[in-house]
Amino acid sequence: MATGTLLFVVDRQMLCLALFFVIHTHLFHCQQFTIPFKDPSGCAVEEFFDISSLSCAKCGANQRQSSSGLGCICQTGYKTKNFSSGKVPFTCEQCPPDKPAVTKDGFGCIRCPGRFNDNGNCQCPSGNILVERDINGTFFDEARCEACIGDSPAFSAPNSNGDRCERCQATFSNTFCTCTTPNVQAGGLCFPPGGLSTNVNPSVSFAQLAFSLQSAWFVENLYSSAAACLVYSNLTACQALGNMCVMNMHSFAGLSTDACSLFNTISRSKAALNSVQDISYWRANLPWLYYGDEPGLASQVIQNRPVPISFSFRGAKKNTDIQLLAAVYNVRGEFLKWEPIRGNNLQLCPEPAFKQAAAFSFGTTYKETCELSVAELLAAHPEPLFYDVFMDLGGGDNRKLLPLPTLVQNQQYNGQFINQGSMKNWYLSRRIFLVDALSGREKTLTSLPKVIRVATSIQIRFQLVPRTQEGQIYPPLVSVSYTDVLIKEANSQTVSVTFSVDYEMDQSEARTKTDTALGVLGGLAVLYSLLKTVSWKRRIASPLIDMETMLKFLLFYAGDLANVFFVVTVGTGLYWLIFYKSVKAQQFVSVLLPLPAQEEQIETYIGCAFALKAVQFLHKLILQVTVDVFLIDWERPRSKASRTVPATGEAKQEPSPVSIWRTYFVANEWNELQTVRKISPTFQIMAVLFFLEVLGFSNLALRDPWSTLERSPAAYTPPYSLILRYGLAASLWICIGLLQVIFFTVFYEHFVEDKIRQFVDLCSVSNISVLLFSHRCFGYYIHGRSVHGHADTNMEEMNNNLKRERESLCGQRGLLPNTEIQTFQVSFTNRLRQQYDRIQDSLSRRNRPSRLIDASAANLSELQFRAYNTMNHFLASIIDHAHPEMDYIVKDKLTMERVIGMEFLEPIDKSIFYNDERHSFSDVLFYGNEATLLIFDTLFFCVVDLGSQNFVLAAVLTYLQQAIFRFIRNTFGRRNLVNKTLVDQRFLI
Amino acid sequence: MATGTLLFVVDRQMLCLALFFVIHTHLFHCQQFTIPFKDPSGCAVEEFFDISSLSCAKCGANQRQSSSGLGCICQTGYKTKNFSSGKVPFTCEQCPPDKPAVTKDGFGCIRCPGRFNDNGNCQCPSGNILVERDINGTFFDEARCEACIGDSPAFSAPNSNGDRCERCQATFSNTFCTCTTPNVQAGGLCFPPGGLSTNVNPSVSFAQLAFSLQSAWFVENLYSSAAACLVYSNLTACQALGNMCVMNMHSFAGLSTDACSLFNTISRSKAALNSVQDISYWRANLPWLYYGDEPGLASQVIQNRPVPISFSFRGAKKNTDIQLLAAVYNVRGEFLKWEPIRGNNLQLCPEPAFKQAAAFSFGTTYKETCELSVAELLAAHPEPLFYDVFMDLGGGDNRKLLPLPTLVQNQQYNGQFINQGSMKNWYLSRRIFLVDALSGREKTLTSLPKVIRVATSIQIRFQLVPRTQEGQIYPPLVSVSYTDVLIKEANSQTVSVTFSVDYEMDQSEARTKTDTALGVLGGLAVLYSLLKTVSWKRRIASPLIDMETMLKFLLFYAGDLANVFFVVTVGTGLYWLIFYKSVKAQQFVSVLLPLPAQEEQIETYIGCAFALKAVQFLHKLILQVTVDVFLIDWERPRSKASRTVPATGEAKQEPSPVSIWRTYFVANEWNELQTVRKISPTFQIMAVLFFLEVLGFSNLALRDPWSTLERSPAAYTPPYSLILRYGLAASLWICIGLLQVIFFTVFYEHFVEDKIRQFVDLCSVSNISVLLFSHRCFGYYIHGRSVHGHADTNMEEMNNNLKRERESLCGQRGLLPNTEIQTFQVSFTNRLRQQYDRIQDSLSRRNRPSRLIDASAANLSELQFRAYNTMNHFLASIIDHAHPEMDYIVKDKLTMERVIGMEFLEPIDKSIFYNDERHSFSDVLFYGNEATLLIFDTLFFCVVDLGSQNFVLAAVLTYLQQAIFRFIRNTFGRRNLVNKTLVDQRFLI
Repeated sequence: MATGTLLFVVDRQMLCLALFFVIHTHLFHCQQFTIPFKDPSGCAVEEFFDISSLSCAKCGANQRQSSSGLGCICQTGYKTKNFSSGKVPFTCEQCPPDKPAVTKDGFGCIRCPGRFNDNGNCQCPSGNILVERDINGTFFDEARCEACIGDSPAFSAPNSNGDRCERCQATFSNTFCTCTTPNVQAGGLCFPPGGLSTNVNPSVSFAQLAFSLQSAWFVENLYSSAAACLVYSNLTACQALGNMCVMNMHSFAGLSTDACSLFNTISRSKAALNSVQDISYWRANLPWLYYGDEPGLASQVIQNRPVPISFSFRGAKKNTDIQLLAAVYNVRGEFLKWEPIRGNNLQLCPEPAFKQAAAFSFGTTYKETCELSVAELLAAHPEPLFYDVFMDLGGGDNRKLLPLPTLVQNQQYNGQFINQGSMKNWYLSRRIFLVDALSGREKTLTSLPKVIRVATSIQIRFQLVPRTQEGQIYPPLVSVSYTDVLIKEANSQTVSVTFSVDYEMDQSEARTKTDTALGVLGGLAVLYSLLKTVSWKRRIASPLIDMETMLKFLLFYAGDLANVFFVVTVGTGLYWLIFYKSVKAQQFVSVLLPLPAQEEQIETYIGCAFALKAVQFLHKLILQVTVDVFLIDWERPRSKASRTVPATGEAKQEPSPVSIWRTYFVANEWNELQTVRKISPTFQIMAVLFFLEVLGFSNLALRDPWSTLERSPAAYTPPYSLILRYGLAASLWICIGLLQVIFFTVFYEHFVEDKIRQFVDLCSVSNISVLLFSHRCFGYYIHGRSVHGHADTNMEEMNNNLKRERESLCGQRGLLPNTEIQTFQVSFTNRLRQQYDRIQDSLSRRNRPSRLIDASAANLSELQFRAYNTMNHFLASIIDHAHPEMDYIVKDKLTMERVIGMEFLEPIDKSIFYNDERHSFSDVLFYGNEATLLIFDTLFFCVVDLGSQNFVLAAVLTYLQQAIFRFIRNTFGRRNLVNKTLVDQRFLI
Repeated sequence: MATGTLLFVVDRQMLCLALFFVIHTHLFHCQQFTIPFKDPSGCAVEEFFDISSLSCAKCGANQRQSSSGLGCICQTGYKTKNFSSGKVPFTCEQCPPDKPAVTKDGFGCIRCPGRFNDNGNCQCPSGNILVERDINGTFFDEARCEACIGDSPAFSAPNSNGDRCERCQATFSNTFCTCTTPNVQAGGLCFPPGGLSTNVNPSVSFAQLAFSLQSAWFVENLYSSAAACLVYSNLTACQALGNMCVMNMHSFAGLSTDACSLFNTISRSKAALNSVQDISYWRANLPWLYYGDEPGLASQVIQNRPVPISFSFRGAKKNTDIQLLAAVYNVRGEFLKWEPIRGNNLQLCPEPAFKQAAAFSFGTTYKETCELSVAELLAAHPEPLFYDVFMDLGGGDNRKLLPLPTLVQNQQYNGQFINQGSMKNWYLSRRIFLVDALSGREKTLTSLPKVIRVATSIQIRFQLVPRTQEGQIYPPLVSVSYTDVLIKEANSQTVSVTFSVDYEMDQSEARTKTDTALGVLGGLAVLYSLLKTVSWKRRIASPLIDMETMLKFLLFYAGDLANVFFVVTVGTGLYWLIFYKSVKAQQFVSVLLPLPAQEEQIETYIGCAFALKAVQFLHKLILQVTVDVFLIDWERPRSKASRTVPATGEAKQEPSPVSIWRTYFVANEWNELQTVRKISPTFQIMAVLFFLEVLGFSNLALRDPWSTLERSPAAYTPPYSLILRYGLAASLWICIGLLQVIFFTVFYEHFVEDKIRQFVDLCSVSNISVLLFSHRCFGYYIHGRSVHGHADTNMEEMNNNLKRERESLCGQRGLLPNTEIQTFQVSFTNRLRQQYDRIQDSLSRRNRPSRLIDASAANLSELQFRAYNTMNHFLASIIDHAHPEMDYIVKDKLTMERVIGMEFLEPIDKSIFYNDERHSFSDVLFYGNEATLLIFDTLFFCVVDLGSQNFVLAAVLTYLQQAIFRFIRNTFGRRNLVNKTLVDQRFLI
């Protein structure tokens, strides 16, 4: 061994060779342990399969393979001789000619009274028995054939082995152990005449495959079961008959004689007897297969009386166990047992038990589907089992059971599939099976079935009693759908089976509430939109009601209606989230989630909300990138040369022109403000993703009543409820958004930086005012006149100015003396606007295609600079009250005006400057429209998620959407700024 | 019915009442269909369980419940009388006093020769048979007790019913159907003396529970099986003995007489016979349970000869089916069948078949764990089945099987758990079982077992032959671990079982390669870091080698080593990804993924890479926020008053100071450039998330050879390979990063905006140069002198200037005449730096705590402005060649200098300006360090993912990390800029 270990580093094949020569006993280390494959059927007739060596071995002399193939027996005509030990435990010896037959035990030879059969044993005529030994066990020299005495009191007949007389079957005993006409013998029983016509129809109808076949099982048992049930009231036979009816899908037609018709005939004949358990459909001795056939009975059975049991999700009386119990019968009608339905009884899919147990936890929507191999089904279910399903109502000693009505989708009534239509035509029934591979066997019971029937869909539907506060339900309905599978290639065929448990409640009340809320809020939205339209009309100073007004109204209405839809849908989502999921709610179950079909309405609403919000968002976007803006430079040249409104452009001759860089600076900063928001949109996405996907909030949207965030990956995961997903995502998004807004407005802007405030300060320091026209006659003004007179100075003076201001050594920044207020909303007079338009006209003329002659001068023209200077001086003089005919007043806005966003006073003679400490000029930026943006993002995220059921995809697309719109807003906003302020876009970086 | 339908809107309870009075027949619609629960055991003695009504019903007169509870039988002493029909099919009649006993068939009365038993039948003495009828079936008046004749040739004995004489068991026949001493009777057989000592030990040892128990099964069968095997060579008995040894965990000690010792005794006694199938461990008639006990045999068996079968993942010869076959025996030693091992044979966990089938797809790491209820195991496995597992090598008619060696973890050898240690002590064996609920039954075979033994872990381990190109493997090893479960409360007890398939190959070669690459590249990294250190020494103009130099070297080395680790680990990850997963690779399997334990080394490397990269990143961050920067304003006042270097600060008296706003503008833009990157970091994260989580790239990291992105949620999901996850995430991150860099540098910066270029242009337009000192004597210079002389002018002139420049009417922007180059790398002379430091000293003095007297003046002081102006003039005059003693030359950098990042010339007399068209000044910004940032982000993402196995969490944390470092960089960068340029931070917005 040591040698081997030392050599082990060498190539192993070399090692083998080496070892072969060196140490012979080590040879086996290198040998490949393979054996040839043999199985019992592969051994020859004179061989047997040696189970120790798994190979074929020879039998002894005169021996042949036994039927199992695992041993040997003596050949015909040879008797077994015993030996004490050895590999072959016995030898065989030919029987002498005078005793040519072998006894049945194989150990003796005997003479026969008549013929002997293929095995070399004696054979007696039928009805006789073969006797080889006397009572004490001694062999006769010649075997005897004896007849059995059928007369009373012996009542004997040959046993199945044909070697003994035994008591004959009870039903024969009236006729001395033979069944003679007019009696009818069937299924081992003897029936008196007149009970039942023997003309029965033993065919099974496979409606899906559109053919019937004569079933071997039915041929053998249908008449005898029916007759035994009718004549002898044999309980097992009655059950067997019922089972045949169940295998025939409970289907019957008026005058036929198939299983169900026989069952009904017998059932009618027992109508006179007391019904079982006080249930009129349940006749004595018979299984209960049908509820009545009155139309409308189904809805009365399943929606009439609540089940006397209460379900509760939480609290001391927590009860979510659905306890079902089934009486199980085999196909022969024997009662096997009471079986609690927990996991694998009704569920064909192989899943771990605790996963399957989730199906019976009240409130957990359960659906398990799988593909099963037909070959495996055949192997596992040679015979069907039949289940009568009950619900266990508990109650200690007085334990009560509630039979569950069953709806067989395949059931036919006079050829109609009545159970696939509306509920009022349903015919409820009882008793189901899972796999029937028996009725499809055509010739013999051992042949391969031509068709198997599988319960491919079993659904248990629970319905909550409307307005219950005690978690009461109606009797649950078991809905079964069978599939006929034609066997062609059983090994490769599969069949898809489903087991599901659904919960529903009448949602019409919730729907009414939703619609009411929509109606009321929608009405308010109309009013509010009207108000906005009126306000807009005033602000553009146009009294006419024209198409544009209508369009505007519709645009405003779109936004408001979007909000209404949003509030209603989020409210609904939150309602379900809170009432179905929260820890406190549902001490007793009072609401259940809407089914997917019932969710469609809300999905439509969400779609509407998103579409309308998108319209509003695009409208605002377009307004923002077309806003009129002008930067008024208050700086005057240092040389005291009086400057009139320049119309000749001799500015160059002045010693020191006013530097344009402050304007560039302000324009640049204004440009950067365009897409600043009150929240960080990316952080928003990341935070939402973190909560949903990392912390597992998405598990709150599962269709079960539990609000745990962490789920074991092995546990059953119910499907998602779209409405919960929406409620969860939208409320999470809005919550995080609001938290961010609060953080940024309360903390960040106070302690880190407030870009809007910074901009206003910058205006002041740079001696530049900003005038914005959001409407024709309405806009915003940021007063930026430097309190120091000059801002166009060197660093030292700038710092001195700032220092003086900090030390309050100079005036205040406000427009009015001794005020701080720098920002205003402005209602302009029409006259002012007209003057502005005139100047603006020449300012932006280059954008028009009229100046073809100067096409090469793509740059700014002389004329435009003159217009720019004119505009600057014009606006500055207006602010300075230098135009008496276009004067203005400053006043506070009324609270009411603030609230409804409309000015009551019309600026007829004088423009009105409303103090506006809230920087509402940000309304022309993203910053001032955070609500719209946030809701738009929320809806975008939710709509993508509803479509894809993927939060990560929704997050990625939302990010892209934000990036694209930010890019659009920036690009067009910059272009607008360039056009309106003449600042070269190279300075807007 | 119509009435009911019309009234249906009324409350249903009211309806019930109404219907009750109105239509009596409709009452049943309202009744609650409940039935009381009864089961057969709940019926009284004189009742039977009526299976049609599921209730208890009375038996007829003189009758009592039958043993099944489902019917009635006559009381003792009553015979059955037949009736033709009716609910109760028969009546009972008391036997007359002269025939007090009932016949065995229950239909007759008879007189007994002796006593009669509890059932009222006659009873004969033991060894006799009871005869009630004659041969033809006629009852005797008095039953007879007869003895059977045991002598030859009758050899008869009473049958099990005691009513007939039959042939006695073969082993008795030598002694005339009795087993007399010295023969030994056991298990229904009769053994001759001297075969085997009857002193056997029928106990089973439960080592985990530290006790043994006398097993009923062993008591009954151990001696008889062993004796039958030894004496009669009974094949079934030999298998049964082997099974008992397997149930005893293959454990044996030297001199004991337990199952395995008996097996070994018999095995040794058969050593003289030929071994089976040429396998020396497999003795004739016996099952093959053990490989030899030579030390080191295990490694030779499982690592010596490849299996003659090739696995291939792709291509025409694709072969991934692992075909296992098991010979199945029951506990009695009977051979049941050859069973292909596909799904549920060895896997106790109930899972869908196609999921379980994934276990036998070569290359798919499989692991399925579940908790099973002990009660269900007991019900499903009343007796163990035994599996001899083979691998099917195929081959048509010459189908070959390879026996798989088994490692039983619980096997003891003289009390030692030899199989839990190192491989050289392993004792391989064969035959396993899944659940043994039999050997733990203590008193009787029908009692509840005290202990059950469950194969809680079955692992099949495949090992690839090293350097195979043909997908060859060594014989797979089946490793089994059994758990002893003490039965206390079977219904609530669970046991966790695992089935796993692992694939491994010798990774030492891959490891060597990795380590070699690390060593080589690590060496190069040392050289490169040395070079960097030398370069750094030159740039700070310090010849000394001090602690700081060492520290610098280590910092550089950290960065380079991080890159080495990164390249090696990503390379390894990619290697596995490509070789294991790609569509083209592995026509024949040649590599297998490292096992989790083998991945640890790479994980360490990744950790190192991240830690070192973090050091480098922080180092760069600190350098960047401390860089020296100065903005040189070239603008001179418009008045021609000659300005000498001002030392008295009379700038105020000049008519028009140079406006500081251009400086503000440039400083503001420089501030905004700080954290600009060549990629969009958020887009990066989103894109990576999109690929990994939405498109399903993460599925590429699963431990199977398939490269499909979409997996059915129902299919088996193997565990993740950390190394594949890392390789995938890192390469995806790097790829998307590179694509972004290409997009931004090639497309975006050419066609949309190039912020760096814009900044350089801005400098030029604003007449401001930027001087940056990244090292003491090395830095960057952006030449921004306006070609128009003045930039501090109004909009018109600015536009004219720009227009003239566009039309090439003025000079070019370069530092040298007629050149375009504006950006330079600069090696400064020591003298220049000293002068700079002197001025800088007073510029930044306010930061020092020395000026306590002026503590209130937190603002800039007069002195600083003077210093600022001095610095401005000093630097401007240097650039203007106005200082002969600090002159400079401009030259191109050599290619070599560019490549190794070091200047060859030392700036002794003159500073050297190297042309730098690549804007390498961005090295002091994030922009110029994209590689470092990208790799750092990649590693951060991957490290978080490796820790959490959650890409979403990694994405969120990476986003936060980026945001935090961006905030830090911005804040400190701005503070630095404020300090160095004196620009008030209110203008850096």
